[in-house]
This record gives sequence, C-alpha cells and structure tokens, in this order.
Amino acid sequence: MGNFLVIAGIASLLALAFVVYLAKYVLSKPQGTEHMAKLSSMVQDGARAFLYREYRYVGSFVVVIFLLLTIVGLVNPEIGLNFRTAIAFAAGAVASGCAGFLGMYIATRANARTAAAAETGGVRGALDVAMSGGAVMGMGVVGIALLGLVIVYRMFEGDPVIVNGYAMGASLVALFGRTGGGIFTKGADMGADLVGKVEAGIPEDDPRNPAVIADNVGDNVGDVAGLGADLLESFVASIISSLAIAFIMYTAVGAEAGEFLRGFPFILAGVGIIGSILGVMYVKRFAQSNPQSALMNGTYLSAIVTLVAIGVYSYFYGVSFPHPDREGIEVAWWGPFLAAVLGIVSGTLVGFISEYFTSSKYAPVQRIAKGSQSGPAITVTEGTAVGMQSTIIPIIVLALAVVLAYWLCGVYGVAIAALGMLATTGMVVAVDSYGPIADNAGGIAEMSHLDPKVREITDNLDAVGNTTAAIGKGFAIGSAAFAAIGLLSAFMLAADLSPQDVSLLDPQVLAGILIGAMLPFFFSSLLFGAVGRCADMMILEVRRQFDAIPGLRDGEEGVLPDSTTCVDIATQGAIKGMMLPGFLAIFAPIIMGLLLGPDALAGMLVGAIASGVMLGLSSANSGGAMDNAKKFIEEGNYGGKNSEAHKAAVVGDTVGDPLKDTVGPSINILIKLMGVISLVLAPLFI
Amino acid sequence: MGNFLVIAGIASLLALAFVVYLAKYVLSKPQGTEHMAKLSSMVQDGARAFLYREYRYVGSFVVVIFLLLTIVGLVNPEIGLNFRTAIAFAAGAVASGCAGFLGMYIATRANARTAAAAETGGVRGALDVAMSGGAVMGMGVVGIALLGLVIVYRMFEGDPVIVNGYAMGASLVALFGRTGGGIFTKGADMGADLVGKVEAGIPEDDPRNPAVIADNVGDNVGDVAGLGADLLESFVASIISSLAIAFIMYTAVGAEAGEFLRGFPFILAGVGIIGSILGVMYVKRFAQSNPQSALMNGTYLSAIVTLVAIGVYSYFYGVSFPHPDREGIEVAWWGPFLAAVLGIVSGTLVGFISEYFTSSKYAPVQRIAKGSQSGPAITVTEGTAVGMQSTIIPIIVLALAVVLAYWLCGVYGVAIAALGMLATTGMVVAVDSYGPIADNAGGIAEMSHLDPKVREITDNLDAVGNTTAAIGKGFAIGSAAFAAIGLLSAFMLAADLSPQDVSLLDPQVLAGILIGAMLPFFFSSLLFGAVGRCADMMILEVRRQFDAIPGLRDGEEGVLPDSTTCVDIATQGAIKGMMLPGFLAIFAPIIMGLLLGPDALAGMLVGAIASGVMLGLSSANSGGAMDNAKKFIEEGNYGGKNSEAHKAAVVGDTVGDPLKDTVGPSINILIKLMGVISLVLAPLFI
Repeated sequence: MGNFLVIAGIASLLALAFVVYLAKYVLSKPQGTEHMAKLSSMVQDGARAFLYREYRYVGSFVVVIFLLLTIVGLVNPEIGLNFRTAIAFAAGAVASGCAGFLGMYIATRANARTAAAAETGGVRGALDVAMSGGAVMGMGVVGIALLGLVIVYRMFEGDPVIVNGYAMGASLVALFGRTGGGIFTKGADMGADLVGKVEAGIPEDDPRNPAVIADNVGDNVGDVAGLGADLLESFVASIISSLAIAFIMYTAVGAEAGEFLRGFPFILAGVGIIGSILGVMYVKRFAQSNPQSALMNGTYLSAIVTLVAIGVYSYFYGVSFPHPDREGIEVAWWGPFLAAVLGIVSGTLVGFISEYFTSSKYAPVQRIAKGSQSGPAITVTEGTAVGMQSTIIPIIVLALAVVLAYWLCGVYGVAIAALGMLATTGMVVAVDSYGPIADNAGGIAEMSHLDPKVREITDNLDAVGNTTAAIGKGFAIGSAAFAAIGLLSAFMLAADLSPQDVSLLDPQVLAGILIGAMLPFFFSSLLFGAVGRCADMMILEVRRQFDAIPGLRDGEEGVLPDSTTCVDIATQGAIKGMMLPGFLAIFAPIIMGLLLGPDALAGMLVGAIASGVMLGLSSANSGGAMDNAKKFIEEGNYGGKNSEAHKAAVVGDTVGDPLKDTVGPSINILIKLMGVISLVLAPLFI
Repeated sequence: MGNFLVIAGIASLLALAFVVYLAKYVLSKPQGTEHMAKLSSMVQDGARAFLYREYRYVGSFVVVIFLLLTIVGLVNPEIGLNFRTAIAFAAGAVASGCAGFLGMYIATRANARTAAAAETGGVRGALDVAMSGGAVMGMGVVGIALLGLVIVYRMFEGDPVIVNGYAMGASLVALFGRTGGGIFTKGADMGADLVGKVEAGIPEDDPRNPAVIADNVGDNVGDVAGLGADLLESFVASIISSLAIAFIMYTAVGAEAGEFLRGFPFILAGVGIIGSILGVMYVKRFAQSNPQSALMNGTYLSAIVTLVAIGVYSYFYGVSFPHPDREGIEVAWWGPFLAAVLGIVSGTLVGFISEYFTSSKYAPVQRIAKGSQSGPAITVTEGTAVGMQSTIIPIIVLALAVVLAYWLCGVYGVAIAALGMLATTGMVVAVDSYGPIADNAGGIAEMSHLDPKVREITDNLDAVGNTTAAIGKGFAIGSAAFAAIGLLSAFMLAADLSPQDVSLLDPQVLAGILIGAMLPFFFSSLLFGAVGRCADMMILEVRRQFDAIPGLRDGEEGVLPDSTTCVDIATQGAIKGMMLPGFLAIFAPIIMGLLLGPDALAGMLVGAIASGVMLGLSSANSGGAMDNAKKFIEEGNYGGKNSEAHKAAVVGDTVGDPLKDTVGPSINILIKLMGVISLVLAPLFI
C-alpha cells in the first residue's frame, strides 16, 4: 500500500482544488441581461429536475444491487462477494452521480455567462468562460473518480473482488446517464425541429417554440453530464482492469514488480491529471483569436506532459518482470510505458480519422452534401456508407494496438494502453464539454435578441467545438473498445478460464459470440424506439401549444410558451426509455453467466465488443457527417439554405441525430458495463 | 464410393429432366401481343448482354485463380493443392454460371407469358406459368449443383482438398452474381424512380421512362439469377462442409460409420430434390384462387417429404458412432437426422420472424407507416429500429441451434443442420423466383396498356410473392449463417487448429475477430458507393433523354426512349462496382492467413459471421419493412398515395432498397465465400 496512493490522492485533490477555483471564476462573471438570467435559470431548473428524477430511479437500482450483493455474501460467504463489494459499488455510483451533477450545475450556469462574455470580451472572453466551465466538468470527473478510488482501494487494501465494485457502480450510473440524457436531448431536439423548423417555419432556438428550453436542457444533461459520466466510467474501468490484472500477475512476478504493476495505473492517472491541469491553463492563458489551435495545442500539451512524466517515473522506478505469455522474455521498465504511449497514439489516430469522416473540410461530408441534391434518400444512403467506411482504419489500428500491447507486456499491456488513452480524460472532457456550453450560449443569445455578432462568436466557438468533439467522440469509442477488451481479459483471468475453455471450437463460446453480437443491435433498437416515442409526444405537445395559446405562433409581445410541460415530457420519456436498455445491459451478462457459464459469457463479451464497436463507430460518424453536411450546405454550397439539397440534408441530420448522440455513445457504455459486471460477478459464475 | 453417389446422381438427373419439361411447358405458352413480345425481348437482350459481360470479367478471375492454384501445386507439391483443386474449382464456377444463366433465360421469357396467361387464364393460369418459370430456376440450381458435385467427387475419389474447390468456384461466381446483380438492379431502380416518379411525376413502370427496361432487367439479373447463385452456393457449401468434416472424422469413427457420415449429405441433398419436385407439382396442380396457401402448403410438403425420407433412410441404414467431443457418448442413428430436423425447424422459424417484421399485416411495418406522417426522418429511423429488432430472436434461435447440433453430433451436426435447412433449396428458389417473374409480368402489362385487371392479378401474385420472398430471405440468411459456421468449423479442423490456438485469450484471435467484424461494414460501404454512383449516372442519363428527345416527356405516340443506353450504364456500373468488393472478399482471408496465420484467420471468420449476420439480417428486414410500409400507405392508410406520409415512405423505400436487395444478400455470400476460401487454402496457411 505504497506511495502511489499518496501521489494519486494528491493529484486528485489538486484537480478538485482547481475545480473550486474555476467554478468560482465562472460564477463571478456577469450573466448579462435579466432576460438572459431568466432563460439560464429555466434551463437550470429543467436540468436539475431531470437529474433529480433520473437519480431517484437510478438510486433504486443501486439500492437493489447493493442488497443483492450483500445477500449473496450472506448466503454464499465462500465466494468472496459481500457487503464490502456492495460498499465499493455504492461509492462508484455516488462518484459518478456527483460528477454528472457537478457538470450539469456549472454548464447550465456558464451558458448565459459565455454569451455575456462574448458581448463584452469577444472571442477570447467567451472562450475563457466556456472553457473554464468545461474544465470544471473535466477536472471534476477525474478528481472525484480518482479520489474515490484511492479511498476505496485504501479501505479494502486493494482486494480486487471488492475494488472492482467501484467500477461497476460508476458504470451503472453512467449507463443511465448516457441513455437517459441521450433520449432526453434527442427527443426534445427532434420534437422541437420537426414542428418548429419544418411545420411552423420558425428558426432554430426561436423563443416561441415551447420545446426550445427542453432542447437546451437536453444539451446539458446529454452532451455534458452524459459525456462526463461516460468518460469517468472509461477512466475508472481502465484503472480497475489494470489493477485486477496486476493483482492476478502479482505472485508470478514477485512482490517488487507486483507493487510496480499495481502502482503504475495510479501514477499514470495522477500524472494525467497534472497534464490536464496544465493543458486547461494553457488554453485559458493563450487563447487569442484562434480558438481552434489553442484547444489543439492544449490537448497536445497535456498528452506530452503526461507521457514525459510517466516515462521519467518508469525510468527511475520501473521494475522488469517476466512476460506473462512469452516464455523466457523479461519485460523491461519501458514495457508498460510504451503500452501507454501506444494507447495515446492509437486513440489520437482514431480521433483524427473520425474528424476526417465528419468534418466538412474533407471529401466524405462534401460527398453527402453533393448527394443531397438528389433528395433525402441519397443523403441518408451516403451518410450510412460514410459511417461504415469510417470503421475501416480505426479497427485496423485497434487490432494492431491490441496485438502490440500484448506483445509488450501481455494482457496487462492492453489495460495500460486503455488507461494511457484515458489518462488525459480531464482535458478531453473539458474540451468536449465546452462545445455544448458555447452552443447553449448561442441559443440564449438568439432567444434574448442580442447583437447578431454575439451569435456569430458563439457559432464560431461551437464550430470549433464540433471538430474537437468529433475527435473526442472517436477517442471515447476507441478508449471504450480498449477498456472493454481490458475488462474482458481481466474477467477471463478472474474466472480462471483456460485457453481450452474459451476456444472458438467450443459451441458455447460460438453461441455466446453470436448472442453478444446481437446485443448492441437490440440495445440500439430500444433506444431508437424511446427517442421516437419521446419525440412523438413532444411533437403533439408543441402542436397543441401552438393551437391553444393565442398569439404564440405569431410571436406577440409577452406571450410565452409553456416550456415546463415540454421539459416534463422529455424527462418522462427519458426515464421510461432508459429502463429497458438498462435492464438488458445489467442482466444479459448475469443470465448468460448463470445459464451457460463463464466461457459462453466470455464469448458474449467478445461478440458485443466486435459488433458494438462497429455499430458505435459507424453510428457516431454517420450522424456527425450528416450533421456537418447540412451545415456545409447552409454555408451556401449546393444552393444553400432552403434549397432542395438543404431540405434533404435536414432529413439526413434528423436521422443522424439519435445515431450520433444517443445510440453511438450509449453502446460505448454497454460494452464496458457488461464487461465490468462480468468481472465483478466472476466469482459467482465459476 | 458407394450407392449414395448413385442416388444423388439419379436425383439430380430427375431434377434436370423436370427442368426440361417445365421449360418446354413455359415456352409453349403464348407471349401475348406483339408489343408484349417486343418488351420481353428487350428485357431478354439486356439481361443477356449484362450476364455475358459479367461472366467475361468473372471468367478472368476464375482463370487467374485456376492458374494460381496450379502454380502453387507446381511450386509446393507437398501441401496438396494443385491443378486438381483448380479443376474442381472451375467446375464449381461453371455450375454456378450455368444455373444463373438458365434462371435468367427462363425468367425473362416467362414474364410476358405470365401476363398473357393472366389475361386469358386468370390467377390460376398466371400462377401456373410464373411458378413453372421459377421452378426451372429452382430445380436447375439444385440439379446442376448436385450433378456437378457427384461428378467431381467421383473423379477425385472424395479427396476433400480437391473437392472443396468446387464450393469455392460456386461461391466466387455467386459473389459476383449477387453483388453485380444487386448493384445493377438498385442502380437502375433508384435512377428510374428518382427521376421518373419524383421529378417527372410519371408512374412506376411507365414506358416513357428510359430506365424502366433497365429496371426490369435488374429484377431478372438481381433477384432471379443472383438469388439462384446465392442459394446454390449455400447448398453446395453445406454439403462440402459436411463432407470435409466427415472426412476428418473418418478414422476416429471407423470405416462403416465413416461411409455413413460421408453418404448422408448426398442422400439428404438427393431426397431434398425429390421433395422439391413434389412440392412444385403440388403448387401447379392445386393452385386455385388462393395462391398464398398453395405456395405455403407446397413448401411444407417438400420439407415433410424430405424429412420423412431421410428419417426412414437413417432408421434403416444409419450407423452409430462415437461422439466427437463428448467422451464415452455414442451417437445413435437418429443423431444426424435430428440435426437435419433442427436445421429445417430453425430455418423456418427465422423465416417466419422475417415475415413478422416485414409484412404489413403486423405491428412493425404499421408503426413505420404511422411514423411516416411525421416525415421521412422518422420513417428511416423507425425502419432502422425495426431492422435491428428483427435480429433478436433469429440470433437466439441460431445460437441455440448451434449448441444443440453440437450436442447431437459435434461439429458435423452443425454442418448437417445447415444442409437440412437447404435440402429443399429447389422449392425455396422456385417460390422466390416466381415473385420477380410476376413483378415483371406486371411491368409488361403496364407498359402494354393491358386491361387493368391483368395488373391486378399480377400485383396480387407479386404481393404473395413478397411474403414468401421475405420468408425465403430469412431462410437464406439463416442458412448462410449456418453454412458459414459449418465452413468455419471445417476450416479449423482442416488447419489442425487446437483449442489453445483459437482461444479468446490469444491476442491474434481477438485482433482477427475485430478485423473480421469490420469487413461486412467495409464491404457494404463499397456496395452502397457503387449503387449510388450507378444511380447517379442513370439519373443524369434519364434527365438527358427527357430533355433531348422531343415529345418523350409528354408521351407522344411513337416516341420511344433509348433504353439500351440505360441498360449499358447499369451494366457498366455493376461491373465496375463489383470488382472492389470481390477483391476484398477473396483477398482478406488470404492476406490474414498468410500474415497472421490460421488462428487469426479463424478469429476473422468468426468476427465476420457475428457482425455479418447482424448486418445482413437487419439490412434485409429494415429494407423489406420500409418497402411494405410504403405499400401499406398506398393501400389507403394514413392518407394514401401522394399524401405527406406517402412521400416520406417513398424516401424510406428508396433508402431501404439497396439495403434489402444489394447489401443484405451480398453479405450472405461474403461470409460463406471467406469461409470456403479459408477451407480450400487451409493447407497453405499451416
């Protein structure tokens, strides 16, 4: 129980101190006009109401699982699962819940302040506020996650059967955060757009549209809170899987190397936090007129600081150990270090490829835009094709990275590569959350009839945010794939599966793979259904209000829509819609493990990873590409706004929205959650 | 070299004799008016021209692979691959080519005759001609395939290294047939619809539209010739994989049981042919006013006859043998028989589920139709969700069937289950091909301005055909999955892979699975691209003709469009477009096997099956569901023709078309072809 906990603990406290500083900084900024403050507070109320309600439902899940784990311990004391795992589980759930709440809290307060800053301080002022808000989320995520883990690890002396529960708690809350937030945001968005833009012919974010506030709330609970919970989960899962594997390797490599292997993930996560703090500071300090390059440089800076620091640490404190799979080979001090480098490099590559396929600067999006001239069917077909294409190189990169990481230091290498990718999560989340804040600021500017130049600034910031967000999304998927493979490997080791047990010649394994491959499709169809139903209800309500409230459609002075009902509808739709996918993700591995055993379960996890990564990548990228194809046309290409091509592209965008913001990101969590549940409950299945 | 070859040979000759009889019968029917004969002959010319050109390209592929196999034999005589395998390969290619040609030949001649029969003989007469035409294709496929295999097997004394080549040849030609035909038919269809129906506002199949003939040609080369080649390939692949596995089991089970295991697939295929002949005769004899029930009963009859016959055979001639995997267990005579029953039952189940998700009688399609009222984005989103949902039960059925078949008689059981599903291929193809013939007859009736009641009859027949075709498509995918798993297992045995070699703990296997899962997405994106480009060119040409040919748009008497150029464009688009996917399917397994070895290749096959079955099923069913949602609206629901809902549904149909007719079915062949190439070239990778 060495120094590594101290270092990780200090780093996480530093992150939290930075959070406090940044939050105070953001809150000290002016909110602009009274109307802006009013709008902002409506968004705050809606988001808070949703999160409270979501957490009540998730809380009951948590309580049930807590009790189940405790009961398992009482009934079957010899398998090792008991109330201690339940406590770690609850701690993980609370950590994830806090991070989500914190992000929502600050994001809904930074929006009006960003708009106000754009009015007085231009691009630089607005970027400063938005980035600070995003960084509260980013640093909060990693600070809370790591601090919680350090405490749990210390409390239970690193016993993996207990500590793994922490990841399961974080994962569970993240799943509901992502799916619930995703359904909310897209249900509201589609409802608002289909009636507002298409039927009533009023612009986006028009205050007359009753669903606009719900749409804005959705951006915060989906894109900010959901994203934060997602990456927190990847971050925790990759630390936990490294730890679980290190624990199993402990005896084989001896105490000294064993301590090094157990400490390495903590140190890596800790230096990643320091790197992220420096990255955020760089952006805040050096952002001038070019926000794009400030953000990119900040991201690079944090990655480089992290790599250099972990390299130096490995050089001085690294211990060589026998390679777990390659007989007679000794892994030198640079083995885990290079695995981390591999993770960062391949994660960044996957991110850039996502950018290529989703940015209007490159051929794929332009091809969709061009095809839109022949109508919406071609938009969607081209968009689907682009999404499918975008999987090719990332998968080859991932496959190579898995082989190389194994070659470097066995399955431990895969887990470390995942963590390497995620070490700078603080910075990634900061950059990713800043986009929705800027987007929301734009909405508030629009609704408050501010000077159009304010909207221009926030649109510009948002556009930059879209690029970095595309990279971030690729990153999230790449890291999810890696983390899931790490979890799978940890599970197979923990369940003591021999190579014969999980052979492709075994029919149970094959059947598991087939069923696993089906789960992401099943899960996605549930999400689609939930978004559709939520949007349907929203459409009916908006139509009703336009008919029932006199003067609303024509924008008479003082006539306000009933936004609260719309927020309520989205909340209900999201809560209802997230239940079934949640059950599926939780119970599929349990049922499979109990019915067909751990070998079939391993097969199922592999199948789910294989088809899930494909579906996740192609959904996210095809949605992103269609979104940007629409924007590309709106910039004046192929006839510009209101042309036939534009109408087709709007259809494509609407089809793509749930793909990129609901289905794609939720699948990330699905494959990790199933892995972590299998890992935690492995003692049950043996 | 026993009696089983004699029985199979006689059955295949019977099938061919039946083909000659039916073909003569169809050709003896009158073609209707001169104009109808003219239209029919235009379709014939176009289809023949396309097939000739396609076969020239495919032929050069065949020659290259023939030479490569021969050279491998000269350079490395010890691995066993040589010109003998090349000969078997060429025989398979020729068999597949002949079957495709035969189907195209008769289908393009049965169309006008069906329309004429509808005019004089009503539903019954039309069904008789269309069904006879379809049966020429169906019985031709199985007769040619089995006869060729019997000859090759006899010639090379059943040596699997040689005989497996036959399946590879059939598979290769089938791939090009399916992809080329699929690109042709959807490129022409989308081109015709987008300009004709949407821009020019003229009805479907209007003779003024220059692309209508190409569209009709497409139905024949895609839906008839492509489908036939596809099922021929499944049929051959499932026999071959059973044989390959039986060969490997031979020594372990002893000569008597070994002969039984080798003979069983031939007997099963043979009695399946007899069953199919009886089924076709039943439909021709008892089709009265209710074509639907005649077709279903005929299909059941052929399945029951086949099962009873193989059951009786097994009872009298079956030999028990030690279970290959379960130590100490003896498989009784009913082991392989029950595996065959399992195959038929699960195949039929999968088919019915496809029907549920794609027929307008049930909730899913009606939900899409209802959603269409909110615009095309909802149509497509709901359609995608339905496709994803439709994978759930089929995959569970498949997974259970795999486990049960293994339990019954090891991996041999899986191969036999696949063959059981495919034993009545003759009947399935007959019923499936009859649909496009009826559809084409309707087109000819429309273009020849026949009495609307003729169109009513053919539409009715076509609608029935759509239902049976949906079941047939489900069947095709289910059997492809089974056949692919059979091929995979045969490959792993042939490459002498131990359970350790193909363990999920092996990073190479994991990497292989990831890459394999990506291939169907890559492949589909290539097909989408090809269809899109082909449709684009078609659109430009149709627009050009409408502008350049005076009087065409207004339908002036005697003004004819230039259909030949449109057929040419589709042909070129198809030929160009099928090359890259073909290369991918052929070279992916070879490269993987040579670079990372047979264990990674096994992983790749598993990954491709897992994601391919999902993508294939969901594409086929979501396309089918959107097609029928459009038809459901056209029947007068949700506003009927020309309502907003209908416009949205047309977009959905256009998006769904390439999914259901190009991507979905081509993936079937992809996963089988990669399996068969791996099996044939296994000696190369060891």
